[in-house]
Amino acid sequence: MASVDLNCDVGESYGAWPLGNDAAVLRHVSSANIACGFHAGDPGTMRRTVAIAVEHGVAVGAHPGLPDLAGFGRRVMDISAGEVRDLVMYQIGALRVFADAAGTRLTHVKPHGALYNMAAAKPELATAIAEATRAVDPALLLYGLAGSHLVSAGRDAGLTVVEEAFADRRYNRDGTLTPRSAQGAMIDDVADAVAQGVRIAAEGKAATVDGAEVSVRAGTICIHGDSAHAPDLALRLRDALVRSGITVAAP
Amino acid sequence: MASVDLNCDVGESYGAWPLGNDAAVLRHVSSANIACGFHAGDPGTMRRTVAIAVEHGVAVGAHPGLPDLAGFGRRVMDISAGEVRDLVMYQIGALRVFADAAGTRLTHVKPHGALYNMAAAKPELATAIAEATRAVDPALLLYGLAGSHLVSAGRDAGLTVVEEAFADRRYNRDGTLTPRSAQGAMIDDVADAVAQGVRIAAEGKAATVDGAEVSVRAGTICIHGDSAHAPDLALRLRDALVRSGITVAAP
Amino acid sequence: MASVDLNCDVGESYGAWPLGNDAAVLRHVSSANIACGFHAGDPGTMRRTVAIAVEHGVAVGAHPGLPDLAGFGRRVMDISAGEVRDLVMYQIGALRVFADAAGTRLTHVKPHGALYNMAAAKPELATAIAEATRAVDPALLLYGLAGSHLVSAGRDAGLTVVEEAFADRRYNRDGTLTPRSAQGAMIDDVADAVAQGVRIAAEGKAATVDGAEVSVRAGTICIHGDSAHAPDLALRLRDALVRSGITVAAP
Amino acid sequence: MASVDLNCDVGESYGAWPLGNDAAVLRHVSSANIACGFHAGDPGTMRRTVAIAVEHGVAVGAHPGLPDLAGFGRRVMDISAGEVRDLVMYQIGALRVFADAAGTRLTHVKPHGALYNMAAAKPELATAIAEATRAVDPALLLYGLAGSHLVSAGRDAGLTVVEEAFADRRYNRDGTLTPRSAQGAMIDDVADAVAQGVRIAAEGKAATVDGAEVSVRAGTICIHGDSAHAPDLALRLRDALVRSGITVAAP
Repeated sequence: MASVDLNCDVGESYGAWPLGNDAAVLRHVSSANIACGFHAGDPGTMRRTVAIAVEHGVAVGAHPGLPDLAGFGRRVMDISAGEVRDLVMYQIGALRVFADAAGTRLTHVKPHGALYNMAAAKPELATAIAEATRAVDPALLLYGLAGSHLVSAGRDAGLTVVEEAFADRRYNRDGTLTPRSAQGAMIDDVADAVAQGVRIAAEGKAATVDGAEVSVRAGTICIHGDSAHAPDLALRLRDALVRSGITVAAP
Repeated sequence: MASVDLNCDVGESYGAWPLGNDAAVLRHVSSANIACGFHAGDPGTMRRTVAIAVEHGVAVGAHPGLPDLAGFGRRVMDISAGEVRDLVMYQIGALRVFADAAGTRLTHVKPHGALYNMAAAKPELATAIAEATRAVDPALLLYGLAGSHLVSAGRDAGLTVVEEAFADRRYNRDGTLTPRSAQGAMIDDVADAVAQGVRIAAEGKAATVDGAEVSVRAGTICIHGDSAHAPDLALRLRDALVRSGITVAAP
Repeated sequence: MASVDLNCDVGESYGAWPLGNDAAVLRHVSSANIACGFHAGDPGTMRRTVAIAVEHGVAVGAHPGLPDLAGFGRRVMDISAGEVRDLVMYQIGALRVFADAAGTRLTHVKPHGALYNMAAAKPELATAIAEATRAVDPALLLYGLAGSHLVSAGRDAGLTVVEEAFADRRYNRDGTLTPRSAQGAMIDDVADAVAQGVRIAAEGKAATVDGAEVSVRAGTICIHGDSAHAPDLALRLRDALVRSGITVAAP
Repeated sequence: MASVDLNCDVGESYGAWPLGNDAAVLRHVSSANIACGFHAGDPGTMRRTVAIAVEHGVAVGAHPGLPDLAGFGRRVMDISAGEVRDLVMYQIGALRVFADAAGTRLTHVKPHGALYNMAAAKPELATAIAEATRAVDPALLLYGLAGSHLVSAGRDAGLTVVEEAFADRRYNRDGTLTPRSAQGAMIDDVADAVAQGVRIAAEGKAATVDGAEVSVRAGTICIHGDSAHAPDLALRLRDALVRSGITVAAP
């Protein structure tokens, strides 16, 4: 029987500033990627977010980002592979103690924002993240953009890799994501996003932004936690997957 | 045979800003307290400092501080016990992965600067630090000011506590440190500091700032890594201890 | 004819994190205290908030805070008078260029959060803020807690001072604010807050937390911008003041 | 009679971390570019550095950088023109109050590190910096890499621009700087750097990294303040210029 993971970026509040609706979205996904204090999150938020994930039986992962709080880790930085390795290790280590203290286990690592995109495109940064992950714990799963350098770097490092697809983003014919800045990049309609998510999980295919079809093999589907309709999309996508005979579960 | 630990705060460079002479001082001490990125230190500095400590066979400890880079963690902040617990866990967790990756083990925790002083004086913050340490690993040693609340909180939490004394600070008659702002608080002469360090280790006693004598029982003696004569003091104190028949070794 | 100012703290978003509803509340108040990047705010937010204030004819002031983004400037820090003077000058200077560029003039300074409370209670910090304000521009008004050290320090520095009262906070018999941690400190009911605001403006009096009466003379009344009902309170207080024959206008 | 400016980046200490030898180098240069708190510097350091510059009769300029303290503003970031404009205005405004308070006038703006290089290469960022400078004060001089986009953007904005050359960097045949990562990019020998500085000022020419000759017209020559031999280079270059009949003076 087919199975897919639903993951969501959470714990992205910071100090006095709330963000997202973690308690709602964590009812419906199977994996939580928790911010670790560099692009978002802080120690108290990390503790509280781990607790909510545990309460809902959701797998707890680290979501390390660039050291750019003002830019929410979304601005590409010219940062060396050594710096990336060290800041990823640091962040995974910081989050892991909260998972341990909550009586659970850190299961996976998914880089955030610009770091995710940089890791998808640049082999040396992908390798740095894979090595940082393995250095902390070789049993950690590494989530990366399906077909990207992060996936191959993770496999080269001996990690189990989970390829990621997006329900609410359009794809190009070569399997890459249509950039957010391009027309039609986002699937704003929840029903359309649900349909794409089910198709990826059931058939391993998605429509491209220009109306063709592309193969998208993925073990996990991302719900963007900072969008207002995240809880709704998560709920409806989960229900649609289950109705299609697909189990929603952490890898 | 008597034994005492010599500890030093290290890894307090930040980004482009070097601080201290870690490579020199780590030749002579037995425990390193490594900054964890809040008051000083950064992921790359943490990795490099752990490597130097391992090279010299020095015990690797976490040196968590207040979230105050601009003030080097030396400004008292009105921060809750819950915040303290979470930021101490975060920092210990972050450092621990670098110790593990270097093939060693994190051995101890010593809070930094204002956090150290706050923990010495306020029972609820002392308890928060002790609980954070135990939550990460009950085998971690907790270093705290001899006779302070941090020592009793650590014991109450079931941790092994190492009481700390200072070779280059004067004591009051009640065993507390003479505040830095007071006349005569610092022992600037290296020979005098060496003499006080040996006397504490050998007799458990020190002269007070007003010429009396006070009992100071300590398992570890602190060398201030940010002073220019730290390597010299560490070398001479170690030699003097050994000549007095006292072993210098991590607890 | 009587006149009073209504002021509100705004521009307290940071990067990706929105906070408050500045566009709504700035329709109703006469003075805006704009965060300057230390406790909240960032250069882009400052530019945009100044623009909204100008659009609504609201006086533009600087709202400098402690260097504590994670704590929103609400945690008391043991910071020297010299440090306070310099960071207040820095923040006023940073905001002033956005006021100038928007074709308006910076009119006033009101410290934020813990810095406000520290300035109210500690003469040397009050003096530091007053001197920082005068150093930037002696024509700047200084807003401070009615009857506090900041008010007297401002006068001693030759500044025009505007004493501040609170519509939604209870007072003690000595004219100080009941601490937030105490029972009954906050006036949560909007109608009650409106009534207190009008009474302060019209009679210079307020009920105390224990049912007595205290004199509260104030040139400006604060609306807390980070509370959900800030726009509603601002609108209703303004209307009630006008109906009572009191003009709402910047000092 | 020929004249050239010698400028140096100063005020790049941060909190407890000293950097450079500002008091020594400011004896010999004619313009100081003072860090403004984003890549380095803090309010107290800014005040003190302005005071030293004033004491030595050195022109006081702002040295705004990227919001990247951990990377010392040397890591290229993918930041929008609007963000650049706002953070440059913010930093100039912050520094200007310290110049005013010291009884002098802010004379110029020179962007730092990666922002300097980004402004040299990207017209929209160059324009953003020029507009930010003009928005604060159209009388401010803008220092930029000779022949770069920042120079043309400054002129387009109606600013007086000062083109900058480097005594201790090698040039390519097209007049650009040889990247630091390339062999032979730095002129480590002080006598060679002095010779290049004099030749640029006297003849408007420099040798290229591959032994040819290139035209370098510059109104100011940069001394790198963070190198250990900065005071020595500044002193010797100044003396050599004067002996060659060239006045060293701020533009």
